[in-house]
Amino acid sequence: MTGRFITFEGCEGSGKSTQIRLLSEKLNKAGIPHIVTREPGGSDIAEKIRAIILDGRNTAMCDECEALLYAAARAQHLREIVQPALAAGTLVLCDRYVDSSLAYQGYARGLGLKFIEDINSFAMRDFCPDLTLFLDISPKDAFNRKHGADEGDRMEQLGIEFHSKVYEGYLKLADMYPDRIAKVECGGTKFQTAENIYNILKSHKII
Amino acid sequence: MTGRFITFEGCEGSGKSTQIRLLSEKLNKAGIPHIVTREPGGSDIAEKIRAIILDGRNTAMCDECEALLYAAARAQHLREIVQPALAAGTLVLCDRYVDSSLAYQGYARGLGLKFIEDINSFAMRDFCPDLTLFLDISPKDAFNRKHGADEGDRMEQLGIEFHSKVYEGYLKLADMYPDRIAKVECGGTKFQTAENIYNILKSHKII
Repeated sequence: MTGRFITFEGCEGSGKSTQIRLLSEKLNKAGIPHIVTREPGGSDIAEKIRAIILDGRNTAMCDECEALLYAAARAQHLREIVQPALAAGTLVLCDRYVDSSLAYQGYARGLGLKFIEDINSFAMRDFCPDLTLFLDISPKDAFNRKHGADEGDRMEQLGIEFHSKVYEGYLKLADMYPDRIAKVECGGTKFQTAENIYNILKSHKII
Repeated sequence: MTGRFITFEGCEGSGKSTQIRLLSEKLNKAGIPHIVTREPGGSDIAEKIRAIILDGRNTAMCDECEALLYAAARAQHLREIVQPALAAGTLVLCDRYVDSSLAYQGYARGLGLKFIEDINSFAMRDFCPDLTLFLDISPKDAFNRKHGADEGDRMEQLGIEFHSKVYEGYLKLADMYPDRIAKVECGGTKFQTAENIYNILKSHKII
């Protein structure tokens, strides 16, 4: 049986890594085999691409280059890591996927959703997640929770106005794809959010 | 006045770098301002992308990742180096451009010209060379001239069958775009080829 592909989306500091870790612990306890991976990166070549994308010194990077690098890393990671795991019947939890490109580059950078969909349909050959969990927390709250941006990370340096647009982009995507994208209520503690996520996975018959 | 954008295309070992150097010397003697640049690379960020593409250890790279990395490097190089030089009225000589992606990834890798055109129209925003010089020498002759492939270069390692397809791809492109792509006769010495190139540039009123 083919595994299921679950992606996590949200603004910087929305708690994606924490929630993936908490979910992974729950799955381990329940004896459900899975892998945890991330974008951009997740494979040797894709991590090299990640290093170029996020390097805080690469301030001259144009928006088109950035969008194409994300798509390149995605293509590699998908073929090298995600698809083989799914073929082996493993549940895949991935920190960020194509919705990040749509929200960040398509919407917030202003490149347009159409362009981003085109280059990513090439990267992914229309390979879609079974379910996307959008951690619905505003960038202001997320920044506060994270105690500010990472100085060395080119994307985190972009400031609250940019990240507010990213958040708007995510809300639009959630409206556009209500069957695939589930909004996760994040108002409580991290353990309550983890419980919310577990319940969503159950209700979607992922676990 | 806007400068002109001249690209050089051909198989590995076809003599592009040599011919660009010889042309640059002639232009210097004639007092014609110009810059020499190359793809993939030509700017700091694009050279970092080049290093990933060509690294002989990156054998796991999938074709889609490769094509997207070339397009990413192109987008960056175009905006950071080529377009500012052209805006300043400078003649730009560039070793490889979009026709390399069409011949290598679109044709020889079998990804299809349409896909490569789509991602590159995003990278280039339909920015085209004024003239493309295709150094028309078969890969067999080119390999012999170069005394074999560079072991550390992932593209050069691909063997004669792959490079023969690249050559076929170039011939098709030259047929498709006869106004933009000029075939350069390379049967004589490198100095005769340089003379041929100079005459083509004159006849196209580039110089």
